[in-house]
Amino acid sequence: MYDLLVINADILQIEGPSASFLPRHALAITDGRIAAIAPTISPGLAREVLDAQGKLAIPGLINAHAHTAMSLLRGVAEDVAVESWFNDYIWPMEMNLSAEDVYWGSLLGFAEMIEAGVTCVADHYFAMDEVARAVDVAGMRAYLAQVFFSGPQENDQLATSVAFAERWQGSAAGRITTGLGPHSPYTCTPSLLQRTAEVARQHGLGVHLHLAETADQVAQSLAHHGKTPVALVRDVGLFEVPTLAAHLAHPTQEDLAILAAADVRVVSTPKTELKMALGVTPVVQMRQLGLTVGLGSDGAASNNSYDLLEAARLIALLEKHTRRDAHILPLGEALALATREGARALGLAGVTGELRVGYQADVVLIGHDAPHLQPMHNPVATLLYSARATDVDTVIVAGRILMQGRQLLTIDRQRVIDEVRQRAGHMVIRRANTQVARYPTE
Amino acid sequence: MYDLLVINADILQIEGPSASFLPRHALAITDGRIAAIAPTISPGLAREVLDAQGKLAIPGLINAHAHTAMSLLRGVAEDVAVESWFNDYIWPMEMNLSAEDVYWGSLLGFAEMIEAGVTCVADHYFAMDEVARAVDVAGMRAYLAQVFFSGPQENDQLATSVAFAERWQGSAAGRITTGLGPHSPYTCTPSLLQRTAEVARQHGLGVHLHLAETADQVAQSLAHHGKTPVALVRDVGLFEVPTLAAHLAHPTQEDLAILAAADVRVVSTPKTELKMALGVTPVVQMRQLGLTVGLGSDGAASNNSYDLLEAARLIALLEKHTRRDAHILPLGEALALATREGARALGLAGVTGELRVGYQADVVLIGHDAPHLQPMHNPVATLLYSARATDVDTVIVAGRILMQGRQLLTIDRQRVIDEVRQRAGHMVIRRANTQVARYPTE
Ligand SMILES: [Zn+2]
Ligand SMILES: [Zn+2]
Repeated sequence: MYDLLVINADILQIEGPSASFLPRHALAITDGRIAAIAPTISPGLAREVLDAQGKLAIPGLINAHAHTAMSLLRGVAEDVAVESWFNDYIWPMEMNLSAEDVYWGSLLGFAEMIEAGVTCVADHYFAMDEVARAVDVAGMRAYLAQVFFSGPQENDQLATSVAFAERWQGSAAGRITTGLGPHSPYTCTPSLLQRTAEVARQHGLGVHLHLAETADQVAQSLAHHGKTPVALVRDVGLFEVPTLAAHLAHPTQEDLAILAAADVRVVSTPKTELKMALGVTPVVQMRQLGLTVGLGSDGAASNNSYDLLEAARLIALLEKHTRRDAHILPLGEALALATREGARALGLAGVTGELRVGYQADVVLIGHDAPHLQPMHNPVATLLYSARATDVDTVIVAGRILMQGRQLLTIDRQRVIDEVRQRAGHMVIRRANTQVARYPTE
Repeated sequence: MYDLLVINADILQIEGPSASFLPRHALAITDGRIAAIAPTISPGLAREVLDAQGKLAIPGLINAHAHTAMSLLRGVAEDVAVESWFNDYIWPMEMNLSAEDVYWGSLLGFAEMIEAGVTCVADHYFAMDEVARAVDVAGMRAYLAQVFFSGPQENDQLATSVAFAERWQGSAAGRITTGLGPHSPYTCTPSLLQRTAEVARQHGLGVHLHLAETADQVAQSLAHHGKTPVALVRDVGLFEVPTLAAHLAHPTQEDLAILAAADVRVVSTPKTELKMALGVTPVVQMRQLGLTVGLGSDGAASNNSYDLLEAARLIALLEKHTRRDAHILPLGEALALATREGARALGLAGVTGELRVGYQADVVLIGHDAPHLQPMHNPVATLLYSARATDVDTVIVAGRILMQGRQLLTIDRQRVIDEVRQRAGHMVIRRANTQVARYPTE
């Protein structure tokens, strides 16, 4: 007896660099895993049946780099350069966030992600116990790391990050995995990064950090340390543990060789990178060198949304444009970035990111009956270039239905929105009188 | 007595390069025009009242370059270069389209546009009588031109384009305006373009054409004619009538001076330009030179959608990235491109594109209560960077409600989808044995 049976689904199966289409197939789920995919499976064999007629079934989308609770700061800093973004807006406001704010901001972000078909997120923030609680409530899958910076409390912060990782590793029925979260080599000293590497090795943990986001960061690293941020991070031993590096818009040729040799997993967050004019991760070049590259949203203060279909669309459009070659990042490969490759980046290869027997049942159903999705000459093109996050109809994680017919089942949507609105009102007022550390500009 | 009163709307008013926010305002409509905008207007003064609480009111979006019926070809040619796109897919399929196909394809596209908040479209295709009928049924506003090419029937085709323009000018209660549609200088000879200019002058018509889309087109024009496409079109006299030029991704410095001097109106279609790797219209540079620039979708075979919010978002993201400056194309200016500037490009300045007393009542209401739109620290940022076309709730054109609560009132949505699906199935089969003219590749 299957726990759940999805019938009549138009399944998109990612195969290497392309994707195949299994029209009107059935997908059976038992114990949270995909138990069978076949043209027909009898409804009598399942406790619950979900009719997916007129819907595409795809693997749950994977957001491989987010600061989810920054949903609270959506739209506070627009059309400004990164220095002002940090110094005048984000850091003053973040200093005033309470752990409870982070809980509600995370829940809002997870509501948005589930509504957009995102089933798994790599979150990188502070007050991570609250984030983990929100993940548990929402029913999502997550790779979580508590962020820390250099400063007078860096030892405590590192210890807190380790304690968080130990406390939540494998929790929420295995949906939560954890790592350590040094913010970046421009906010953590080489010595702190070195200790992080040692502690990570001892505890068998990976790390998640920002790396080579801007040309300025690379120039400053060369000026202060005589090496690029990538070389610096390699030299302190951090790449000896599984490393997830966000942005990486400005690797040198030598950096790329270092990253490939160390099997560093990269996350591109194209909307943030474009909007803040940081430069964009060279995704295609990295993939040609054998690097694993996932896609992320970054926080809502820069993005301003948690929409992974949009991220896949943006990187495909941008790479075609930059290389003046319309063949670059074809449909299946762009879709894989937001699913299978994201799973690999988060150390979840074989667990999620594909619709295959034995994988966790992280499944998203997307209606394809609306005028903007018809006619459907090519289902992957429909998904990647015509569908909107709001076309997502049903979301399943580990066999549990989190949204059906666009109704959230694990999150009290209105309650979350009311909480967040009230908290957001206070934030703007508190920012005015707050003094903070400065983003390093030489 | 007002005909229609919208109350409690959060109005976005575009002011020069920025946008101001009128929270919870009322907007009254009489005889299809905006009669008043004020903090409160008594519901007793109107025949019909629409409560827009929790919704942004913006001017209807303007799609300044489309081949709407290409909705029928959505997704047929993916990840291919422009030569193959034309020769192997689009032209063989278009040759088999009937006038009736164009009618249903247009209606599907207008359904999509209305659902995405687009109230006005510049359509450039063949069988334009069918397109005009579909515009009339849908209730949209449109600037229409029948396309023609050089060839044995060019004189008939030009005459047909003129007859179409004369027949429909000012029709649909003034919602339809018309012009002539030479396809481009790479498919029309200088002599045909020259005759087009003469006829346009005689009839007081403008023209709508493709211009300098690719670097190859410019190189071939220089090789064959000793001048750029822009110089060629200027020399035959076409710029002496109001000209709407699509794409224009590859103007030389001299071309830009020519365009500015002639007040040529430009349309950028960023998603098509990125996806087909054509190069992108230098929108900011053109605006700095005083050129009018609107945004368009192009056809769904290249885009693959008719989403003008997406177009505004893409051009803002891309210009920030290209110029490595996050201040470029700020929120209000990006929004203006899809509204006020689009109206100017179509010769509809003072008619539509802004929410002002005396303008046509082309109004779009967008819900802002969903998790991905909250909290709303900055309403213009919410609209431009977080909202999706599917957040559009209500669409009004010339005072008539075309969609309310996402229910289309002028188009039988399911009927259109059924018709299009059936027709789309036949197209793929017919393509195989069709011989067509070749896209010029030297
Ligand atoms: Zn980040
Ligand atoms: Zn076009």
